Amino acid sequence: MDRLRRLVPILAWLPRYRRADLPGDLTAGLTTAVMLIPQAMAYAMIAGLPPIVGLYAAIAPPIVYAVFGSSPKLAVGPVAMDSLLVAAALSSLALVGGETIVVAAAALAALVGLIQLAMGALRLGFVVTFLSQPVLSGFTSAAALVIAASQIGALFGVKLSPSTGLHTILGELWGARAGIHVPTLLVGLAAVSLLIGLARFRGKAIVVVALAIISSTLFDLAGRGVAVLGEIPAGLPGFALPWISSTTLISLAPAALTIALLSFMEAISSGLAVAGPDDRPDADRELVALGLSNLATGLMRGYPIAGGLSRTAVNAQAGARTGLAGVFTAAIVAVALLLLTPLLHGLPKAALAAIIVVAVAGLVDLKLPRTLWRLRRRELLTLGVTFAATLTLGITTGLALGVLLSLVLFVLRTTRPHTAVLGRLPGTTVYRNLDRFPDALPVPGLVIVRIDAQLYFANVAFLRETLMRLIDEAATPVRGVILDAAGIHDVDISALNTLQELHRGLAAKDIALYFAAVTGPVRDLLARSGFQDLLGADKFAITTHEAVQQALGERCSVDPRVLQANH
Amino acid sequence: MDRLRRLVPILAWLPRYRRADLPGDLTAGLTTAVMLIPQAMAYAMIAGLPPIVGLYAAIAPPIVYAVFGSSPKLAVGPVAMDSLLVAAALSSLALVGGETIVVAAAALAALVGLIQLAMGALRLGFVVTFLSQPVLSGFTSAAALVIAASQIGALFGVKLSPSTGLHTILGELWGARAGIHVPTLLVGLAAVSLLIGLARFRGKAIVVVALAIISSTLFDLAGRGVAVLGEIPAGLPGFALPWISSTTLISLAPAALTIALLSFMEAISSGLAVAGPDDRPDADRELVALGLSNLATGLMRGYPIAGGLSRTAVNAQAGARTGLAGVFTAAIVAVALLLLTPLLHGLPKAALAAIIVVAVAGLVDLKLPRTLWRLRRRELLTLGVTFAATLTLGITTGLALGVLLSLVLFVLRTTRPHTAVLGRLPGTTVYRNLDRFPDALPVPGLVIVRIDAQLYFANVAFLRETLMRLIDEAATPVRGVILDAAGIHDVDISALNTLQELHRGLAAKDIALYFAAVTGPVRDLLARSGFQDLLGADKFAITTHEAVQQALGERCSVDPRVLQANH
Repeated sequence: MDRLRRLVPILAWLPRYRRADLPGDLTAGLTTAVMLIPQAMAYAMIAGLPPIVGLYAAIAPPIVYAVFGSSPKLAVGPVAMDSLLVAAALSSLALVGGETIVVAAAALAALVGLIQLAMGALRLGFVVTFLSQPVLSGFTSAAALVIAASQIGALFGVKLSPSTGLHTILGELWGARAGIHVPTLLVGLAAVSLLIGLARFRGKAIVVVALAIISSTLFDLAGRGVAVLGEIPAGLPGFALPWISSTTLISLAPAALTIALLSFMEAISSGLAVAGPDDRPDADRELVALGLSNLATGLMRGYPIAGGLSRTAVNAQAGARTGLAGVFTAAIVAVALLLLTPLLHGLPKAALAAIIVVAVAGLVDLKLPRTLWRLRRRELLTLGVTFAATLTLGITTGLALGVLLSLVLFVLRTTRPHTAVLGRLPGTTVYRNLDRFPDALPVPGLVIVRIDAQLYFANVAFLRETLMRLIDEAATPVRGVILDAAGIHDVDISALNTLQELHRGLAAKDIALYFAAVTGPVRDLLARSGFQDLLGADKFAITTHEAVQQALGERCSVDPRVLQANH
Repeated sequence: MDRLRRLVPILAWLPRYRRADLPGDLTAGLTTAVMLIPQAMAYAMIAGLPPIVGLYAAIAPPIVYAVFGSSPKLAVGPVAMDSLLVAAALSSLALVGGETIVVAAAALAALVGLIQLAMGALRLGFVVTFLSQPVLSGFTSAAALVIAASQIGALFGVKLSPSTGLHTILGELWGARAGIHVPTLLVGLAAVSLLIGLARFRGKAIVVVALAIISSTLFDLAGRGVAVLGEIPAGLPGFALPWISSTTLISLAPAALTIALLSFMEAISSGLAVAGPDDRPDADRELVALGLSNLATGLMRGYPIAGGLSRTAVNAQAGARTGLAGVFTAAIVAVALLLLTPLLHGLPKAALAAIIVVAVAGLVDLKLPRTLWRLRRRELLTLGVTFAATLTLGITTGLALGVLLSLVLFVLRTTRPHTAVLGRLPGTTVYRNLDRFPDALPVPGLVIVRIDAQLYFANVAFLRETLMRLIDEAATPVRGVILDAAGIHDVDISALNTLQELHRGLAAKDIALYFAAVTGPVRDLLARSGFQDLLGADKFAITTHEAVQQALGERCSVDPRVLQANH
């Protein structure tokens, strides 16, 4: 039963639902719906789909997510970034037979859902840990600009070819400057000004939509050539299997995989952004919940959804306590679909484009680049490359490059692990980093090194070179090398062989190799591989001091009492 | 001058050449040449080139390498693995105009040389550290089988389509079993038996070649349909610019990059295998030396070369002391080219195929898989995947997959770094891993954790989860968490933000977060980011014990003398 409650969180929270949570959930549900209705239509436009598809995709997902989701405040539904990916997938699609773009979008959502379900079942939620903040920030900023650029045509009333590059869009706009439709541009500019003026007022998008519809009727904007939404069918979306040919399905698969990964990462980072210490989303359960939500929207004439950052933030601020807020949101969208669609007929598309541009402008992150410039310039490179690649090479390539770069830079750093040359603190048996403890004194004839890393194929050459350099640079001839291995938690086969080579090389120079404070698993490996026997058990000491005693005692027969006196 | 000697090592070693080194260098040069002459012809056959190209490629490279190389015992010249890569590159090449395959091979060598020179100038030699032993072993074993498979047609006297898959070759052979040429097969089997019988005798290949030529004349093998080498032009290769069209050059570029990387890795691992502690090859200088050698062979009608493992081992065992051994090898090959080519006319190709098969059979590594099974099964996976991928997907893909897999597995391990929960050793101020020190006692109300890793985006979630779990599982309510940070050598921006979140989350539960033994650079970052001020300077202690005193003293006003008594 506990397991079931873990898989279906609503079984845990609904029976314990407190009446006190209801006002918060209701307010949040209403506020989010007011934001969602215009956004859902606008984002469907980004995806190249009829606005109604966005509204359809805003009903089933919040309800399904309320049942299965682990992040009570997450607002799921259409989001800008995924819509852009959907646009890319659909625009390059060669439809066969009687297939329509709308059915293909629903099939894509179902496919995304199945992939997310499979990833959840395989517990692949950990992939989210590979998304560093510089990558996320660079990617989000660039994607926001790409999305804004995609709306330039609608704002200026000119037809631009779909493109992901900001510079090509601006170039095209310049080329088509004679064809700019002034009434459309005026509507767009008025909407943008209003949205900026209303600033933090959460219902601002609905106000803009209402005013745009009223102006459209008053001034007969459609008659003046301003593009309007036109007829929107009333009524709720029914269940419909999105049947498409296997050829189309296969050509959608790569995009589905990208959307599945990206929308998951978007949802989990939105969920984390508003989570308290006790309601942190669980990555694997989120995959299942999002998968089922996407499957639901795919079977209900929608298109792929995610958990969006801006609506989630609004939902949390407006007081959402449980998934019930999402259910209220869905109910309000459903009422709007049943009653309000006739009103939307005259809504200028430029007003929706303005809503998108203002919404994504807030996603451009200037704070992290500044922080990184101040604190971590190395990571600024990752951010910059991700940003530039996303802007110029497309958003999937940009994200992939960013993740790859951050991993490569990490691995490169591990090839030169932290090492400390140790000396003895006078009058003690304690050995410390000579660089950081001015009192510590090197032990003549010995090189004592501590390395804090697992030894593996890519960093063991560095260890060897470090030791060789230290032996060469030592003031007195070196007769023993002591490796303080307390920080070495793993040794792979390449490193083991290099240690054996190192031992042979040192033995040829009459230098003995000692190990101090070897951890359990490493000691086990050294023993089973025969390396411990090769060196001799006397070369392994519990503490650095014991190893020093061994090295000095064996090699030059110092009276042990001389060393004892120092204790 | 020292810098020049470093770049051109011959300036350092030739003036100091000792007469005592001459016998060793002469013997090694002769022995290696005896092995090299038949191998060079055979490997050119692997590459799909006339045997004479292999001999041409065996002259300039050892001389150039003697001047610039940093590994005195490395035997450079044609090798099996690169020849296979050359075959793959040339067989898919669409030649234009009057271009010949021989000129394309020389151009490929020149291109490989230029790439290696550029890599050396950019100090990219470190890439070799990413080749782990399991990857190298799996790759070499599989490549040996692929090379052996490529000789099956020549051994059985049937024409098989060039293919890199062992299974397809065997299938084809079965299909063509009716066409097997019995006299060719007998020559091949006799040669294989003789090579196995002569076992460790270094001149065995020359003996086989000599006996094969004699039998060929005695029994008129060419007349019986056995394929023989035919006319081989006498004389040394002249200088010739390998002019090819830019189209051909561009289509050779990807193969050139692969060969540049692989032949470098092969050379450096061969050089390391025979190096003493004082003559370890330097990766960047090796790139330059190999680059110039490849450039030389490209300008002298040869094809791409590398440092081969088997001949290098023979060279070292035969007593090579300096690069002069390589110069002697080149001189003997040159004499053979001037005087002995008429003798080679009747040499059956099956004998050369036998030499290849027996040579590469020794490269199949059964030892490392057994060692890994016993010691490190996790790494056996990497070896197995590399082996299987190289065998079935082609040798470049196989190697790339192996390197990628070993890096991914490494990164995955770093996402769960070693952590230790610490307790106090009674009567001391020392805190140790509770799991490994049965005497150590937990401090009630505190969770003390040491983490030995840099904190970065992919492992910081693990740290948070570990701390949360420890707090949940603690026997008494937790009032403080102490992070022993002595092993944390770096904190990236993602980790820093997670630490801030963690602090907020803990503060909400009235749990204080302390840091002990923070290293210099990390402390600097925490200070400059404002995190230190956020926590308060009193939350940072030099030792774990001080942090414990702070945590207990602050939170429940324990008389400090109680703690002092334990000192």
